[in-house]
Amino acid sequence: MILALAGGVGGARLARGLAAVLPPEQLSIVVNTGDDFEHLGFLICPDLDTVCYTLAGVNNLAQGWGLAGESWAFMDAIGKLGGETWFNLGDRDLATHSIRRTMLGRHSLSEITAHLAGKFGIAHPIAPMSDDPVRSIVDTDEGELAFQHYFVRRRAEPRFRSIRFDGAEAASPSPALIAALDDPALEAIILCPSNPVLSIAPILALPGIRARLDARRVPIVAVSPFIGGRAVKGPAAKIMEEIGIATTAAGLISYYGGLLDGLVIDRGDAGESVAGVALHPTDTLMRGSEDQTRLAGEVLAFARSLR
Amino acid sequence: MILALAGGVGGARLARGLAAVLPPEQLSIVVNTGDDFEHLGFLICPDLDTVCYTLAGVNNLAQGWGLAGESWAFMDAIGKLGGETWFNLGDRDLATHSIRRTMLGRHSLSEITAHLAGKFGIAHPIAPMSDDPVRSIVDTDEGELAFQHYFVRRRAEPRFRSIRFDGAEAASPSPALIAALDDPALEAIILCPSNPVLSIAPILALPGIRARLDARRVPIVAVSPFIGGRAVKGPAAKIMEEIGIATTAAGLISYYGGLLDGLVIDRGDAGESVAGVALHPTDTLMRGSEDQTRLAGEVLAFARSLR
Repeated sequence: MILALAGGVGGARLARGLAAVLPPEQLSIVVNTGDDFEHLGFLICPDLDTVCYTLAGVNNLAQGWGLAGESWAFMDAIGKLGGETWFNLGDRDLATHSIRRTMLGRHSLSEITAHLAGKFGIAHPIAPMSDDPVRSIVDTDEGELAFQHYFVRRRAEPRFRSIRFDGAEAASPSPALIAALDDPALEAIILCPSNPVLSIAPILALPGIRARLDARRVPIVAVSPFIGGRAVKGPAAKIMEEIGIATTAAGLISYYGGLLDGLVIDRGDAGESVAGVALHPTDTLMRGSEDQTRLAGEVLAFARSLR
Repeated sequence: MILALAGGVGGARLARGLAAVLPPEQLSIVVNTGDDFEHLGFLICPDLDTVCYTLAGVNNLAQGWGLAGESWAFMDAIGKLGGETWFNLGDRDLATHSIRRTMLGRHSLSEITAHLAGKFGIAHPIAPMSDDPVRSIVDTDEGELAFQHYFVRRRAEPRFRSIRFDGAEAASPSPALIAALDDPALEAIILCPSNPVLSIAPILALPGIRARLDARRVPIVAVSPFIGGRAVKGPAAKIMEEIGIATTAAGLISYYGGLLDGLVIDRGDAGESVAGVALHPTDTLMRGSEDQTRLAGEVLAFARSLR
């Protein structure tokens, strides 16, 4: 059994690769919810939806978020009515948010996510990191910004100082996260190539999770989101630089502070060695499903070699 | 000052005519909210939106509800996700519901309605009958049905027995309704050609309204929604028959139980006379804005002649 922690586009792509090489009962995908927010009357869960749409193969590849073949009549009408248009919601994507809104209160976010994933034809389990609200707040040179205000509205342009996860202290890890960590069949934990600060850190901030991972008996392997010191997508490199951490293997290993047993890095970044952490250089850029499947197979083999 | 009570398509059309012949400060349009309901995560207010869209001239004429030039990607996606598709919500129409949802809690339904009407460029005041939830429940031969389940889901096919207005007893009439009834400049009250049982009765069921209307010093004039004993649109005739009231001038006057001073009927229905209520036969079918404006002018002149 493999536990994959994910968030964002890169994480979703590796999760899809893992789902291609593992049967549903051998994979648990747990997703960041720190960037969830209430907007236009909906609860928006960008990372959960990106993972769900990517695994279902209905994601918008060019855009990097949302659904392929989307239309925008709703947002156009919102703009004409003077509503907020800085966060785009497609007409079809809205159906996901509407069904989530309808189920909230009567169902947990875990149950809602499982329901939606099933409707998208996904056999592998996808779960939020927690059923309780956790909200990432970024401290910047423009002051504190709620995550999507920093990330989307201000395009991650303000200088990143630090991040805190509002509600994390009181949040319970989701049943799926607990079950995976308790599973005697757990073989390895994969930190997908998601933004370490924005997507993986919120999961690690949940009560007891970091301690359980530190006390683990299975390898923890991260896949670097950096190629040649730059992120494939998003502001991960900019943020790491702003908090003074190198966008290298050594920088990532240092950021995770003793958590990692292995790190998969891009072939072009090989050469460096870091005491106590095994490195696996390979092609980490995932252009399509073939890349995803190949990389997932390599990550699995590498993680299993560290047992 | 004229107070118009409205709901549904016919009511919206006459309201638009009244808005064409009266300046904003001389017209108060108060709309039924008994058919409001929570659906797909939204608060849907069909009569308020029909009046708003009709006054803005953006209503879908062929369909009789919703917006012209609408698209349906959201509903299509809802269907594919196994959601409820019996109540159609267009992509652009959703923007109205989204903004209403966003404002709820911080603003009253009156404030939200005024905000939306302003965004649609409407100068005349449109208000809900109450800011408190009132929900029409129809008792039928299939049992009790929430209004939209009776009206849309079951296409008004079950036999109508009676209607009750859940929450009406505890609801306060809206500030606009109170203000109009208190206005010393009030000249007349127009009951628009809406369904008497479904659209006008909920307004009359609000605490104190019927008593205030009975104690009035201004004429109350209704416009019949029937032509030749049939409703122009909707199940009004079927419902009147099912509760044993004729779809004639006499039937309407009897249904309103002494409330009316005057009744505008279709020219083809002239001939009958009813003691104590003045009749004004004319062409009541409103095909376009010219008909609306002409009929509104006639209704006003007739009402003023009864002072």
